[in-house]
Parts: sequence; C-alpha cells; structure tokens
Amino acid sequence: MASSSTATPSSAAVPVAPENSARRGTAVADVRLSPNGFWGRRQEVNGAATLAHCLDWIERLGWLENIDRVARGEVTVERAGWQFSDSEIYKLLEAMAWELGRRDDAELEATFASVVARVAAAQDDDGYLGTAFGHPGLPPRYSDLAMGHELYNMGHLLQAAVARVRTAGDDLLVEVARRAADHICREFGGDGRDGICGHPEIEVGLAEFGRAVGEPRYLAQARLFVDRRGHGSLPVPPLQSAEYFQDDTPVIDAEALRGHAVRALYLSAGAVDVAVHDGDVALLDALRGQWDHTVERRTYLTGGMGSRHQDEGFGDDFELPTDRAYCETCAGVASVMFSWRLYLATGEVRYADLIERTLFNVIATSPAADGRSFFYANPLHQREAGAVPTDGVNARAEGGTRAPWFEVSCCPTNVARTFASLPAYVAAVDSSGDGSTDGDVAVLMQYADGRAVIGDVVLDVQTRYPDDGLIRITVLEAPDAESTLRLRVPAWASDAVLTEPGAESHPVAPGWADVRRAFVSGDVVTLDLRLAPRFTFPDPRIDAVRGTVAVERGPLVLCLESTDLPGDATIDDVSVDTTSAPIASGDGASVTAIVADPDERTPGALPFTSAPATPLRAGATELALVPYHRWAERGPSTMRVFIPTADGTDSTAATDGR
Amino acid sequence: MASSSTATPSSAAVPVAPENSARRGTAVADVRLSPNGFWGRRQEVNGAATLAHCLDWIERLGWLENIDRVARGEVTVERAGWQFSDSEIYKLLEAMAWELGRRDDAELEATFASVVARVAAAQDDDGYLGTAFGHPGLPPRYSDLAMGHELYNMGHLLQAAVARVRTAGDDLLVEVARRAADHICREFGGDGRDGICGHPEIEVGLAEFGRAVGEPRYLAQARLFVDRRGHGSLPVPPLQSAEYFQDDTPVIDAEALRGHAVRALYLSAGAVDVAVHDGDVALLDALRGQWDHTVERRTYLTGGMGSRHQDEGFGDDFELPTDRAYCETCAGVASVMFSWRLYLATGEVRYADLIERTLFNVIATSPAADGRSFFYANPLHQREAGAVPTDGVNARAEGGTRAPWFEVSCCPTNVARTFASLPAYVAAVDSSGDGSTDGDVAVLMQYADGRAVIGDVVLDVQTRYPDDGLIRITVLEAPDAESTLRLRVPAWASDAVLTEPGAESHPVAPGWADVRRAFVSGDVVTLDLRLAPRFTFPDPRIDAVRGTVAVERGPLVLCLESTDLPGDATIDDVSVDTTSAPIASGDGASVTAIVADPDERTPGALPFTSAPATPLRAGATELALVPYHRWAERGPSTMRVFIPTADGTDSTAATDGR
Repeated sequence: MASSSTATPSSAAVPVAPENSARRGTAVADVRLSPNGFWGRRQEVNGAATLAHCLDWIERLGWLENIDRVARGEVTVERAGWQFSDSEIYKLLEAMAWELGRRDDAELEATFASVVARVAAAQDDDGYLGTAFGHPGLPPRYSDLAMGHELYNMGHLLQAAVARVRTAGDDLLVEVARRAADHICREFGGDGRDGICGHPEIEVGLAEFGRAVGEPRYLAQARLFVDRRGHGSLPVPPLQSAEYFQDDTPVIDAEALRGHAVRALYLSAGAVDVAVHDGDVALLDALRGQWDHTVERRTYLTGGMGSRHQDEGFGDDFELPTDRAYCETCAGVASVMFSWRLYLATGEVRYADLIERTLFNVIATSPAADGRSFFYANPLHQREAGAVPTDGVNARAEGGTRAPWFEVSCCPTNVARTFASLPAYVAAVDSSGDGSTDGDVAVLMQYADGRAVIGDVVLDVQTRYPDDGLIRITVLEAPDAESTLRLRVPAWASDAVLTEPGAESHPVAPGWADVRRAFVSGDVVTLDLRLAPRFTFPDPRIDAVRGTVAVERGPLVLCLESTDLPGDATIDDVSVDTTSAPIASGDGASVTAIVADPDERTPGALPFTSAPATPLRAGATELALVPYHRWAERGPSTMRVFIPTADGTDSTAATDGR
Repeated sequence: MASSSTATPSSAAVPVAPENSARRGTAVADVRLSPNGFWGRRQEVNGAATLAHCLDWIERLGWLENIDRVARGEVTVERAGWQFSDSEIYKLLEAMAWELGRRDDAELEATFASVVARVAAAQDDDGYLGTAFGHPGLPPRYSDLAMGHELYNMGHLLQAAVARVRTAGDDLLVEVARRAADHICREFGGDGRDGICGHPEIEVGLAEFGRAVGEPRYLAQARLFVDRRGHGSLPVPPLQSAEYFQDDTPVIDAEALRGHAVRALYLSAGAVDVAVHDGDVALLDALRGQWDHTVERRTYLTGGMGSRHQDEGFGDDFELPTDRAYCETCAGVASVMFSWRLYLATGEVRYADLIERTLFNVIATSPAADGRSFFYANPLHQREAGAVPTDGVNARAEGGTRAPWFEVSCCPTNVARTFASLPAYVAAVDSSGDGSTDGDVAVLMQYADGRAVIGDVVLDVQTRYPDDGLIRITVLEAPDAESTLRLRVPAWASDAVLTEPGAESHPVAPGWADVRRAFVSGDVVTLDLRLAPRFTFPDPRIDAVRGTVAVERGPLVLCLESTDLPGDATIDDVSVDTTSAPIASGDGASVTAIVADPDERTPGALPFTSAPATPLRAGATELALVPYHRWAERGPSTMRVFIPTADGTDSTAATDGR
C-alpha cells in the first residue's frame, strides 16, 4: 500500500499538540526517566513485560485471529471477544509506537510491523476496518451504533497512528488510519449518516490524527460528532438510559460528567480538542465547568472517577462510596487525557495537580510490580479479601486482586499506552507569555528522577520522589538570555521551600513557582515539597465517609491493609486517633490507632439499636499505613483508605470542642 | 380438559401449609380487614384497582398475545417482553385467585376464567408451557437454563394454582398446573435432565402445589432442584458469576444469602419447604443460620434486602449504602415468604417481627395510594428528586418516583398477590403444644382493624395501628375450656402494656405474650404497644450511615423529605440534635434539627480538606418526619432516612463523654 503522504516524525512526539495552543508537552524521547525512579521503573517494566503480555493474551484469545479471518474473507461463525476487541490491538499498537519513539528495539519494531500488516490486510477497499460488523457472517456495518463500538475501535486506530506518525513518520499504520478516517468522513460527514458512536473515542482520535497529518476535514468531522451528541439520537437499549452514552444533553449544556465514566471522559477530551481548534470559548468554558463540578463532587481522593459498578458510571453529587467505588483504571487514563488538554488550553495548575493524583493513585495502582497483572476497578475499601483468578481471566471487574486479563480487558493496554507516553505529561513548553514572562517558559510539572529537554532548556532532575520531597534540578543547558523555569507546587504542599541558585531558601505557596534568571550550566534549583504525612478529612456531604479520616503523604494516598494488623483484628475494628499526627514510616506512615471489639449482638437482630454502640476498646497501638498504589501486592487483603476517627468527633463537629 | 382430581377448596386457604407443621396461617376468608384500616384499605385498592391495572398493562404490551400466538401455533417473529413475561400473567392469576377467595366477584371470576382459558390453550400436549422457547421461531426448550426462566415461569403458574385449588377447588388452572408439574418431573426427574433453573421459584411452586394436590412426586422434584443447586452446573454468562444464581455453594453449606436477592430468597423459601417436608433438621438449621447472618449484616432498617443495583444483589456484610440501596420490592415479598416459612417451622417471634417491618416499610412503600403506580427499588436516601415517567414505563428500576409499569415489571403483580393473600400472615393456629399450653394456641401476630377466625377462636380487633399503638381485642367466640391467645409484642415495643379481662394492666416484654384462660364471649384483651417515636442508631460497622440516626415510630421507619424543609434548605444540610427526643406528630414525628450552610470551597478543588469542615449553623428548628412508606406521595422529592447527628458524636463514641 503506497503512501502519498509527506508526513515525517515530528519533534513534537506527543499525544496532543493543538496547533494554536501556547503550550506543548515534551516529546517522549526528550524526557529520560531514570530506571531507578518511581515512573522510570514502571516505564521499564512496561516495555520489558507488559507489551508482550498484552500481545500474548490478545493473540491467545483469538482477537488477532478475528482480523486475519476478515482479511481472508472467511465467514465468521463464532467470533472471539467482544465487539470492541479490535480496540485492544490498536491501544497496544499505540503503546508500542510510543515505546519505539522512546528507544530503539528491532524486535519490538518487527512485532509492531507484523501486527500492522495483519491489520492492514483486514481493511476494506473503502477504508472501513472492523471485525464485528460488515463481513460474511456478521451484522451489517453501523447496524448497532449504540453498542457496536465500530467508530470507537477506529478512534483507537487513529490514536495509534498519531503515535506512529509523530515518532516514526508515515508508514503503513498511518496510511491505514488515513483511509479509515476518510471512510468515516464520507460515511458520517455532513451529507452522510447523521449518527454518533455509543462509545466516544472517535472524536479524540479524529481531532488529533487530523492535526498530526494536517487534515482539517478530520477535525471538522470530530466537531460534527461532538455537536451531534446529546440530542437523544442513539437508540437506548433495554434497561439503559441516554445518560449512559452522554446522549441526554449536548456537551455545551451539561453541568457535570455523568453516565459511563470512560465514555464521558473520552468525550470531554475530544470536545476540548475541537473547542481549542475552533477557538470556541463557550464550549471550552462549558467543559471547564464540568471538570470543576466533577472534581468538586464526583471524584475520589485518589483522583478516581466512577462511583457505580452499575453502568461503570458516575454517581450523583457526593455519591462516593468507598467499598463500591468503581474508579476504573481506564477512567483514570481518560481523566488524565481530559485534564492534560485543559492544562494545555489554560495553563492552570489544578489540572496538573489532578493528573499527578490520578497517576500515583489510580494508574500506578493498576499494574502489579511485574507488569503482568492489573486492577480494573480501584475501590477505596475492600471488605473481603479477593481471590486469585485460577485461569488468569477475571470475568468481573471486581475482586480485590490483580488479574492478568479480564473478560472486558480495556485496562492493561490503556496502562501500557499511558506509561509509554508518560514523558509527554512530565514537562511542557509554555509560549503564552502570560504573567511576568514574555519568552518560552520551561514548565516542570511532574517530578521524577531523570533528564528533560524542555524547549531550549535541558535539566537534570535528581529526586527520590515520592519517597522523599526533595527535588534537585541542575540546569545543563539554557539560553543565554533570561528565561523562566516554572515548577509546580502541588496544592497539598503547604510547607514547600524553594532554593534558587546562590540564594536563600524561601517558602513557596501551592501553584506555579517561577524561577526567572539567566541560567548558566550547573545552576541548581531545589524544591523541597516536604512530605510529612497528613490527615485528610472528607466534605461532610459525602455520606459514605462521614466520621472518617484518610492519611496522605505527598501525592500518595495511604491505606490500611489487613496484612499490617496485629493478631486477629479485622480492618473494620480499627479507628484512628487524630489528635496524634501521623508519622512518616518507610514509604507510608504510622498512625495511633485503637482496635475495638464490636459489641456482641442478639442473634438474628438487625444491625440497628436504640442506643449508640459502645465497643470495648483496647489500648492505643501504632499501625502502619502503606501507599494505596501497592495494596494487595503482598497477597489478597482487606483494605481501607478512610478509617473511622477514634476521637468521637465527626468531621462536621471536630472544632466545636464537644 | 377433564380433571381427574378430587381436590376441593381447602379450609386452609393459605399460600403455605406444610402438612407436618404444628402451625398454620389463617385462611384468606377468615381474616376480614376493615377497609378503614392500614392494610384493609390497601387490600381494597388492590382488588378495586391494581388487579385491573396489571391486566391492562400485560395485555397492552402483548404479553398475553405471546400466549395466544403459541396457542395458534404461529411463528413468533418478534416476541414482546422479556423471557419471564409469562410469570406476570401467573402472578396476576394468583392475586386474582386469592382475591376471589376473599370475596365474591362475578366479573373478576369471568376475567380470571378467560385468562386461564388462554393460558390453557397454549399448553403443549406434554404439559410444557412457555412462550419464549420451544415453539416456531423460538429457541429450543431448556436451551438456556441460566437465563431462560422457563421453570421460573412455571413455578409461578404452580403458585397460582395453589391459590386456586385452596380457594375454589380443582379447575382448569389446577389441571394445567398439574400437567406442567408432571412434565417437569418427567423432564428433570432423577432419570431426566440434571438441570436447574437460573432463577429459583420452581422449588417453592412444586413444593406447595404438591402439598395442595397431595402429590409427593412434586415435593421430591422440588428437593432435587434444591440439592442440585450450588455445584456450578449453570453456565455462567459473560460478566456474571455463579453466586448471582446461588450456584456457587450448596444451600446446606452456605453461610449467608448472596447474589441476586430475589433469587436467593425464593430459593430459601423453597428450601425451607422441602426441609420441613423431609424433616431435614440440618437443612433447616442451615437456612435459619443464613437468615440470622443476613438479618444481622445484610438487611436495611426497612427490612429491605439487596444492597446493589448491580446484579440486583446482596452486598458484603455491612455493605448497606442508603443512596444506592436496591431493596427491590420483590425482594421484600420474597423475604416475607422466607420468614413466614421459618415462623411456621419454628414458632419464633423474630420471623414475624421482620415480616411486620418488611410489610410496612418495603411492601407498603411500593404502591401509590391509588394502587396504579409502584416503586421497584426502595432506597433510603434520594439525592435528586425523581422524574415522573412520561409514557408510564420506567425503563430502569431507579428514579425516586412511582411508575405505572417497568421494563422488567415484576413488582406490581408481586405486590398484588401479597396484598390479596395478606390475611394468611395476620394470624396462625399453633398446635405445637409448646411452653405451658397443650391445646391449640390462637396467635395474633400482625395488628389490623378487623375480624379474625383463628381456629375455634373468633376475635374482633379494634385498632388504629400503626397510627396508634392501642389494640383492643374482643373475644367473640372461644372454646369452653381454657385456651391461649398469643400476642406478638414487637422487638421495638419496650414499653408495651397488656390488660387481660378483669385484671390490672401489666408490662409485657417483647416476644410472645400469652393470655390463657377460659374465654367467654365479650372478653376484652388490650395491648398497648406505645408508639412514641424513637431514635435508632446504626451498628458502627455500617460505613454508609456512620454518624447518623434514624427515627422510627412503632413499626414505621420515618424519613425526612425535602417537601417538609423550610426555605431553600436541602435535604443534605440537615442534622438532628439527638439530645432532644423526637415527638409524635401526625402519623410521623418531629425532631430538633439544625440546618447548616456547607462551607464555601475552592472551585475545582476535591471535596477533601486538611481540617474537618466547620459549617455555619443556623439555630435549631423543628422538622417533620413522615412515614417512609409514603415518601414521594406529595410529588418528587429528595429524602433521607438516616440523618447526620448534630451533636458531634458518632455512634461509636457517644457514650464516651468526649
């Protein structure tokens, strides 16, 4: 298949690059994370284990065979996997493409090319690509827009092609993507079908692929899909609702994210893309308002989104149960996509803050240390220890243990593509000239040991973050003139201290901390974020956690695991004395806790009584809390993030002195 | 269709009559509830409105046409309704049969006969009856045991036939049921298919129908189905689990009810039936243990069961969220079925206590006052007011408003059959000779204005219960010798007072209160249950309601509705001062409450802070609470049963004095 394109690898090898934005993330090859650091280690494991692990499962379960069967023109009698299984192939190709943009690997390149060749062979002459519709033995194309996922699948194909064209230039995958995008524009353009896909993703795929290959038609088609949504055009399946698909209210009119969380977040990311491209301030403001509302009322302490197992969906405001928190890993990935686009559009620090929270407490929680098993749901309270799946596949999203694969296995490849593209979110060049600066600003927003090229500034970053809050930044290269280094001081870092070259240390408030000067090579800037563990109290409107407290340390949410309990105490017998501050311990903290024996109750009596319970109390003891991201790594356990307070005060009254 | 049976209407016109049980409920015609009383009024509305309402919807939606099409031998091209739609016809027939056992109604009798004739015409020659399988255009019989509901449907047919044979004697419906039961015994007997139905119900249907027509084969088949369950024989559909079907653990080995709540409870009821029939003490003990565990840890204050919308299922122990409480109305009906059978088997008062709680707070909550719309789910906290369904059908079980019909519309007919058979649960004859008595004991266990024939005792009961706690019982007829009248003093009635004929009043403790004497006509016994409203505190292990309190009054759980709030206050701004006792007011209570303005927070900030919130507090005000069973009757509202306490104490520490 000959390519007519002239696209070449872009210096902006990033997932999102709005051409009219003043901010741009760092290219994947421009940030080198040390393999000893928190994120560098994960990136290594991702490249060394997770990519092959995912390909192995996709091949084993016949999802690639689906592609081959279509390529051979065979009649499909029994199709393996769900109607969205193609997307896993594309998400894996995207992860491979970013990984290949980060480092040379001939074997991975050959694997990538081989999968792409199989995909290309399955593409129809008119550009349609899909294995669940439109071929012998299958239902007709676009005969189930609500649940068919055809455009969703191709949206992921386009995102994979974005990764490829920006890291390696035009090739067969890019050509396949271009033909698919052209097909979609013909089929669903202004003169075509007036339809949308039940699962948003094509919007974000078309928008960025349009930018990557310089094709405004694709961006216009993304805009059409965004604008068509919310008018109830999708047929609602039995027992379902239009809200599930975000087809209840147009994006411009919505007040909060709702319905299926991943759908809502992918849609929002795509809508920011088209709003920025079109300079549509009203649409962008609507999306910013939805982000605010969602973060204020529908987001967990971990950054997790999606309160309900039913519909994998958002709940009502302040409906944030910890035990049934869904917090799908993919929703964490999608939340980062949405927040990152808002950061690029606005330069506001809060979006980067939420990205950090989500990266450390949702996305990093999913994979096991070996990169071969994953959490799908990320609850904040596990009442019963999970079981290790016997055949490797966890049929349901729940369970309390990481599983190698899932019946619906969207999360492993989503983690893989996020880790492989992580450098893009670590730093950015800001050319907006906002505030006191008029040149490019080098923005360092996620802290990891390594080396970063940020525009014409090159930095060496030394840190043990998040185990330690000290970040030592050495300038290796900088322009001769004055320039600005902008550092993110997270919202939780109330005691942060900055030391500029040759100057006294001084406190810096949460937000952006700018260091402006004519840097010379060897200049050292240190930022100490001071990671003393801290208590965090919930808003009293969150019923699920009234009268409890959580402990955080730096960007990490901590948790109590049954593994760390003495004797036969259970996780639900513990309360925390909040009059004693938590103390740093290992990579977690220790707290003063009280382990109580619940009252004996009358057999067969309801768990409600005419007087408040007065459990017997043992003496205070010190209990260890560990980072939430590594819970259940020492075997199945029960766990909680929010722990009842032992001092008899609920969060609404602690300061009343009663 | 000629009948070969000699069965005639039984004096025991009750849903459950174990032949070797020492206890038997009162026949439906033997308890006449006053139409002015709480239950009598509902029974009137049921007969006058709900039965016709259900038939109208069933006809309109084509669920009876499904039957006709099968009778005509037509090819089904597009079938209306779900695979379990037949069961709604049978549950309605059961309700009609009980209603006809209670009062003559020629028009209802004609309607009943007409529906039965249509059902009979659809029965296959070998007794199979069903409209979703086994006929032209449909999948083969029993090709989807997990989700096909074929035996489930026929189980409801058998329960309808029980009602008919015991109230009217043998007729066409009974004959149809006998032929269906014979078919099932042939098909699934010891030499037949080694299968079970994904939705239990056939067990309870076969067991009771076997008793009603004196056919032990049916009881043996019920036993087979109970014993076969729990060995993982059902194929588990994608994203589902064996637990959903109770096919994970045999009934005899299970510790708690789990999975789909209605399935679990119907199964339990059928298992008690076979345990009692077979004198299987071990099985009965296992079921009693499961009841205890479930009531202690998986049951709401309303008696509602089922914590999860997902799977319509039970949750883990102490997983009792109020906002997402499912508490399906049908699970309430099924819980009454289970508890009633355990009462008959043991004579223990706690089963009757839970029945009362469930009747008043789940089943009575479902229908609107006009008997033409229903709640399906019964949450204890509604955060957003529901919408009135525009076309009458609520596609989803949620919503916060009663709906005329549902996409899955199991609840209306289940309410109808329960109300029509309600007299059977009001009183019982106990011939066990337990305790100090050796003759029959007349047990009055639910209090309603009316007249009751309980064995050879006839009582006139005057009461405004549950609006008032005074129950005045006049003996109209009694045997010449000494006999015992046994009255239930509910577990919550800690101040109850009993007055025997010609004696001083004396306090009686919760449990059974026996009055033994040679009654003469005109003797009056009064029981005053004293319905002062009371605070009820949750077990500290229930995270969802930590730091809250509920208010109950007699058997009624009360709730706060937004309808009763001053100004623009919202339901979630209210806390209750538990140092002031609630005061009776109308049919509810008033409490001293504090309405707070939530703190202003930073836009876009997570709802978690480094210090407990200190909301501004307005002065104390009196707020009215209304019975939960009538919430949303005054229009869509927000609502909560458990309200945060204002006194700064959570339930674990209130007595610590801190």
